[in-house]
Amino acid sequence: MLSSTPDELYERHRDLLRRAQDAVAAREFWTPYPEGPGDAAYGTDAAAAGERAFEQLIGRDFAIEVPGAAGRISPERSPYGLALDVSYPRSTVDALVAAARAAMPAWREVGPHGRAGVAAEILTRLNARSFEIAQAVRHTTGQPFMMAFQAGGPHAQDRGLEATAVALTESTRFPAVANWEKPHRGAPIRLHKTFTVVPRGVSLVIGCNTFPTWNSYPGLFASLVAGNPVIVKPHPRAILPLAITVQTAREVLAGAGLDPNLVTLAVEEPGDGIAATLATHPAVRVVDFTGSRAFGDWLEANARHAVVYTEKAGLNTVVLDSTDDYPGLLRNLATSLSLYSGQMCTTPQNLLVPLAGISTPAGARTPDEFAADLGAAIDRLLGDDRRAAAILGAIVNDEVLARVDEAGTHGRVVRAADPMVDPDNPKAILRTPLVLRLDADAESVYSREWFGPISFVVATASTTHSLELFRTSVTHHGAIAAAVYSTSEEILVAARQAALDCGVHLSENLTGGVLVNQNAAFSDLHGTAANPAATATLADAAFVTGRFSVLESRRHV
Amino acid sequence: MLSSTPDELYERHRDLLRRAQDAVAAREFWTPYPEGPGDAAYGTDAAAAGERAFEQLIGRDFAIEVPGAAGRISPERSPYGLALDVSYPRSTVDALVAAARAAMPAWREVGPHGRAGVAAEILTRLNARSFEIAQAVRHTTGQPFMMAFQAGGPHAQDRGLEATAVALTESTRFPAVANWEKPHRGAPIRLHKTFTVVPRGVSLVIGCNTFPTWNSYPGLFASLVAGNPVIVKPHPRAILPLAITVQTAREVLAGAGLDPNLVTLAVEEPGDGIAATLATHPAVRVVDFTGSRAFGDWLEANARHAVVYTEKAGLNTVVLDSTDDYPGLLRNLATSLSLYSGQMCTTPQNLLVPLAGISTPAGARTPDEFAADLGAAIDRLLGDDRRAAAILGAIVNDEVLARVDEAGTHGRVVRAADPMVDPDNPKAILRTPLVLRLDADAESVYSREWFGPISFVVATASTTHSLELFRTSVTHHGAIAAAVYSTSEEILVAARQAALDCGVHLSENLTGGVLVNQNAAFSDLHGTAANPAATATLADAAFVTGRFSVLESRRHV
Repeated sequence: MLSSTPDELYERHRDLLRRAQDAVAAREFWTPYPEGPGDAAYGTDAAAAGERAFEQLIGRDFAIEVPGAAGRISPERSPYGLALDVSYPRSTVDALVAAARAAMPAWREVGPHGRAGVAAEILTRLNARSFEIAQAVRHTTGQPFMMAFQAGGPHAQDRGLEATAVALTESTRFPAVANWEKPHRGAPIRLHKTFTVVPRGVSLVIGCNTFPTWNSYPGLFASLVAGNPVIVKPHPRAILPLAITVQTAREVLAGAGLDPNLVTLAVEEPGDGIAATLATHPAVRVVDFTGSRAFGDWLEANARHAVVYTEKAGLNTVVLDSTDDYPGLLRNLATSLSLYSGQMCTTPQNLLVPLAGISTPAGARTPDEFAADLGAAIDRLLGDDRRAAAILGAIVNDEVLARVDEAGTHGRVVRAADPMVDPDNPKAILRTPLVLRLDADAESVYSREWFGPISFVVATASTTHSLELFRTSVTHHGAIAAAVYSTSEEILVAARQAALDCGVHLSENLTGGVLVNQNAAFSDLHGTAANPAATATLADAAFVTGRFSVLESRRHV
Repeated sequence: MLSSTPDELYERHRDLLRRAQDAVAAREFWTPYPEGPGDAAYGTDAAAAGERAFEQLIGRDFAIEVPGAAGRISPERSPYGLALDVSYPRSTVDALVAAARAAMPAWREVGPHGRAGVAAEILTRLNARSFEIAQAVRHTTGQPFMMAFQAGGPHAQDRGLEATAVALTESTRFPAVANWEKPHRGAPIRLHKTFTVVPRGVSLVIGCNTFPTWNSYPGLFASLVAGNPVIVKPHPRAILPLAITVQTAREVLAGAGLDPNLVTLAVEEPGDGIAATLATHPAVRVVDFTGSRAFGDWLEANARHAVVYTEKAGLNTVVLDSTDDYPGLLRNLATSLSLYSGQMCTTPQNLLVPLAGISTPAGARTPDEFAADLGAAIDRLLGDDRRAAAILGAIVNDEVLARVDEAGTHGRVVRAADPMVDPDNPKAILRTPLVLRLDADAESVYSREWFGPISFVVATASTTHSLELFRTSVTHHGAIAAAVYSTSEEILVAARQAALDCGVHLSENLTGGVLVNQNAAFSDLHGTAANPAATATLADAAFVTGRFSVLESRRHV
């Protein structure tokens, strides 16, 4: 492997980093990683080569070293029914932490620019492995291929580069040296000062089952650039995409003459509880977590010595008042609910419709009518099995299946979560979106989060009532995403106000190609510490400033 | 009162704010508030007018409104023996929080620039009251006049403006609006996006007894600019300086057409525990605290829903290896130990000297010799009573006196904490610095923090041993400040490395007019989250980024 020092890597990627920093500041569209699998940049053989590379991993010992290796496990299973049987070496908490700590001092010496150079190189190599990663994501999460490629590959890399850029910007805000000269009777007082970035400590990234790379890259790269060694703890059912990531990172680190244990892999069988043990280790000072509300809350309460960045779950809410494009609204929402079978942290759950109905150019549509219209729109979208499978993907795990079954008992089913067969993957388990009709007083149902293809059409007294429900339920239970549909600027202003009050990002009148559950790095914020669903915002300054300190030394000139 | 809108105030102070932002970025010397009480900017009558204004406050009801007023208290006493008898209206936790919450939405609407304009106006008016505040600080803390003026007035205002500048910079990093245009087959996808700063919630600033303004202004102004209403809870023995501050802030707010309850005063008798009740109120989401390790640790552990910025206490350490200016070293350290009777969070406590002695141009000085030399230097510095009083000030409270008495029993007293009489303030209680000789194994003594005029000369095996002691004791117990004296560049590099390892700011070879316990806003960092003595650094980005979120809304163009 051609080796490059961190400084050389910074020089190599200086323009990329600068453009990423500029994009973050301007929030305009920008990406260095093409999202189209057919993009010429990937080369014509890339898809096939990536698939071959992925196939080479199946049924083998994954080639990665861990400190204090102690046996191997292979806890993954593909939602598409493929036998994965990839085995990973297991380590111990103490060995992982000790190796991370040992790697820290030299990494501190590298400084923010060199570290950002290393991060950019890792991302560049990950981008080259996008098709391999896409297969790994697909067969651990059940995502359809296109999403596995985009969200698992270039979009995740975008988020990683965004975090790299923000961390570089924030950690280089102080000059490395400064000369301080204070006027004084007689001669001025002169001090020479140095400012050095020091890491907070060992960083732990806990991955989730559904978006192993997209949700892990921000914390991984922010911590690395801030100087923290990172222990990557994937979800036991979605290890492979992060194993490839850690392998790539370790190659780049070793090639740069650095300790590869700056990034290590911590695997476990489901239920081993290694994440809790790692997160409460005194040397672990940064924790990034994506997953359930329960464990996220536990981490926030118990990993007290650490700064804890969580993205949990909440009540994604859509306030429906009026529209001048009802078919567009239905198409857009039907797609939002169907995409990856609603297994996204941004999938809308609560659709609030006034009893008098949504005003449309063709007249008002009551909650019942809207629910039926939405069900029909979903049916149309999923009318063709092959096309449906490419949108729905597969159900990721049994918990989601159980939740779909349970949800059906809690309200009037307008559209059932009918099973479907993926013609190309007959072993995959599919469910189409379940749509239930609830009244506003069924708060005990819709105030819980139902992760999966489960949505509620909730009838409210009025749009004002909808906004009040939106405000109070998100204030108390949180949300990752929210949307409003209205032709009234007054209602839009009120919705925006309500979103600011309860602390959630808002999409307004999406009827075209953008979905409420899509967001673009460098421009859109994802999650927010302003409501209980998260303590992290991807990727603002607060997401990185807790990961390092700046220390000063000073002496007379 | 001439009223100005927040926007007008921003325009008025735009240059001031811009220069403050530039100074923070460059870390060069800058201050808009002259530190000399004789500076022409204050006017020739300022000192006398300030004293008259202060005298008008004595024995009266302080003119300030609080929400839900319920009786008055006057818990202060002057360490100089002056009968203060200033009475303040008491409020209740619920009334304070309710008033703060009610004031929040309109303050959010003002936006970061208008809020920074309001903050700058408050600071400008506080600067004009510097002499009045100086008397208030002096008579609540026991600081000598010059320190009370400088640290209580212009230097505190500097820190407030610094926090204002950092908060303005960080909260305006996102554009207010952005146009996002993604290339797409057919027509590009266009979204119009808005980014709005929202406050984290009600902010609580808990003041300390010794530096009521200097340590409170950073949190007060950072929170205000970030959009949070602030409840100011002074130490029960040092209310007046913050009551004047809150009064001034409320005048500016009311004059700008805003709710004065954006800044309120919460007074209590000692032991009432209102700080704990406020800090754990669910609506209080930001806590700034300066004071004891015990209560700071309690806040960090219990105010879980809030972001908690603490400055507690630690083991300020000086590593003494060698010097080419031994008299300068002694003068500098003697002054550091004597200033305000060592009642500063930055006063050196542990002076580590190798058994073989400190190398000086006149030969080595062993720990015993150095301790004696330091004692003599202190005696010389404090030889004249009036001059001594102007350096020492008065002992702030009985806890410090008791600690001095106790400390004397824990080692060999090289220099006793002799009482002194301030000729101009015969009722003031003074103590001169106590210097004890300890061996390195007396860890149980020097590993505790002894706030007050108490320092230990600790004999170590070597400078390497000193550095190791420094590293381990600060890692475990924290420190606000550290210093090293050496003529060897190698030792200085090793000391700097040790300081980075244990996470503390370092002063090197200070033998002139700068003391380890002095630091200048806009350039020097004060405290650091990198060791257990604090979770806040005055004033880095992390000090402000936890106080707000940025929320996005987006719609098709």
